[in-house]
Amino acid sequence: MAQALAPKGGKGPIAMAIGDDCSEIVPDPGHSILLTTDTMVEDVHFRLSYFTPYILGRKLASVNLSDIAAMGGSPLGALLNLEVPPGLSDPANPFWPQFIKGLSEQLARYNAFLIGGDTVKTTCNRLALTLSLLGQVKQGRAIYRHGAKPGDLIYCSGPLGESACGQKVLDSKRFFLPLPVKRRLVKRHLDPEPRLALGQALANVGVSAMIDISDGIATDLGHIAKSSGVRANILASALPIPRSVRIFAQRLRHHRPLDFVLFGGEDYELVWTVPARNEKKMQKALLPILKRPAIRIGYMTEGEGVWLLEAGSKREITFMGYEH
Amino acid sequence: MAQALAPKGGKGPIAMAIGDDCSEIVPDPGHSILLTTDTMVEDVHFRLSYFTPYILGRKLASVNLSDIAAMGGSPLGALLNLEVPPGLSDPANPFWPQFIKGLSEQLARYNAFLIGGDTVKTTCNRLALTLSLLGQVKQGRAIYRHGAKPGDLIYCSGPLGESACGQKVLDSKRFFLPLPVKRRLVKRHLDPEPRLALGQALANVGVSAMIDISDGIATDLGHIAKSSGVRANILASALPIPRSVRIFAQRLRHHRPLDFVLFGGEDYELVWTVPARNEKKMQKALLPILKRPAIRIGYMTEGEGVWLLEAGSKREITFMGYEH
Repeated sequence: MAQALAPKGGKGPIAMAIGDDCSEIVPDPGHSILLTTDTMVEDVHFRLSYFTPYILGRKLASVNLSDIAAMGGSPLGALLNLEVPPGLSDPANPFWPQFIKGLSEQLARYNAFLIGGDTVKTTCNRLALTLSLLGQVKQGRAIYRHGAKPGDLIYCSGPLGESACGQKVLDSKRFFLPLPVKRRLVKRHLDPEPRLALGQALANVGVSAMIDISDGIATDLGHIAKSSGVRANILASALPIPRSVRIFAQRLRHHRPLDFVLFGGEDYELVWTVPARNEKKMQKALLPILKRPAIRIGYMTEGEGVWLLEAGSKREITFMGYEH
Repeated sequence: MAQALAPKGGKGPIAMAIGDDCSEIVPDPGHSILLTTDTMVEDVHFRLSYFTPYILGRKLASVNLSDIAAMGGSPLGALLNLEVPPGLSDPANPFWPQFIKGLSEQLARYNAFLIGGDTVKTTCNRLALTLSLLGQVKQGRAIYRHGAKPGDLIYCSGPLGESACGQKVLDSKRFFLPLPVKRRLVKRHLDPEPRLALGQALANVGVSAMIDISDGIATDLGHIAKSSGVRANILASALPIPRSVRIFAQRLRHHRPLDFVLFGGEDYELVWTVPARNEKKMQKALLPILKRPAIRIGYMTEGEGVWLLEAGSKREITFMGYEH
């Protein structure tokens, strides 16, 4: 199905796309290859009751593009593996062209293309999707999780918590919310935007570690802290709480808006650390992309774990993140 | 699970393996990247009643390695996507270390390593496995399906049909066969050997097109014929029929041994075309690898499709291959 519907032939660095034993990609000289993959299973990671095929294809692309962004890289080509349940096994089902359109248009926005894959039938009643995305980055320029040092400052690219609220809205129809709030939360869950231009800019200004926020900042910053062997300190007062998250949290009992910000997953913003000496250069480089300063939310010290500093108290929140 | 069990850290061209947003690979200068992927679903592509976890991991590696072989490339690193059903969801299940051992040992035999992946739970009761394998080949040296010309000779690397017979043996216990025959057929199905050294040698001696035999030679040679815009003519008398296939076919009614050779899948031998002027050089280069001459089974002419020439008659057999 992927083979029938995906664009054929070479483009740019793609020497051979769909139609041979392997795809062939010629990376730019002096670049290394980045490779990432994500699997999404129906009723575990998404429901077809609220994903249109187009938006589902788009999100599958976005979550993988976000991993390339988090290394400071540029995407090139993707392999799509489909496990097709009996209910979707007719190749003429309009589901497929819409899904492939969403996927390939989102890839193309960032100059990446569908270059291969494998389509198999499953006797299981759930659609399963795997995308593996190949990108490139200048040798020596990739930003890892393990480079943070004590004294580095912690930054994040945008508002957090909206995607987790959006998922709760989608899973239960019983929330009465102003329509613009509802729309915004749901859109942030269904259609996150990978921060590629931002990640690429950050790779050029001396940041020390970076990750994308897929499992909540408490968990993802926990990966940076653990890999780097340092402690991350988040200032609760510095974390922006989106208005939509505040409004949504009011509708629930026993939920602080801050909990969505800290523990909600799938925002696909970037969080990174930067030595203080590179802070000004960084802000200057990001302004044309973000149109506002990036948000400083804390700092690294000797130690381990992720700690939340709030009104004179502190508590550890390492890996207290989102579970799919 | 893959993340817990796979070898960590960089090795050779692997700059970053498991433990970041992406894996990072530094290809050798002047090389392009090859990428292939295969998905195997329980009860569609394999049964756990006759695959040990070790051999299952090994076969998942082999079928992907075979695609790299068919381009003349060298494997580097692999991403593993696991969809884990409830019955296998305990990470302490001995299934997992055995499976990972089979997979990573087979990759390591060919200097490739597990460098990343994604493990998700599924509510479905079937295990699903996707491996995406990245390799490299000297720029301009990859052998495609589309290079065959009229006059080229068709060669194949080894005996065909045994894997398909082996699968029938495994699916039904009612065949009474001599034990060595049974063992050989079953082994060829469960544990095929990717022809990497052979593929790499062929990329250096001027062959014009190549493919690995996963769906039967009638289908796979059909891909070469179609991509190249020429006709493949197979001489029935030149196709070796393994003794084991002959013995097995005698046990079945209405099955010619030749049918297994032509239409049986999953042998993972290579089939390729070579201009007559390069034939001698090719045989000389292959002798140290095969320890015998490669088998010439036919020739290309103007036209289309795959044709079987047998006892003065001819019939078209294009794409009459194996269905998983």
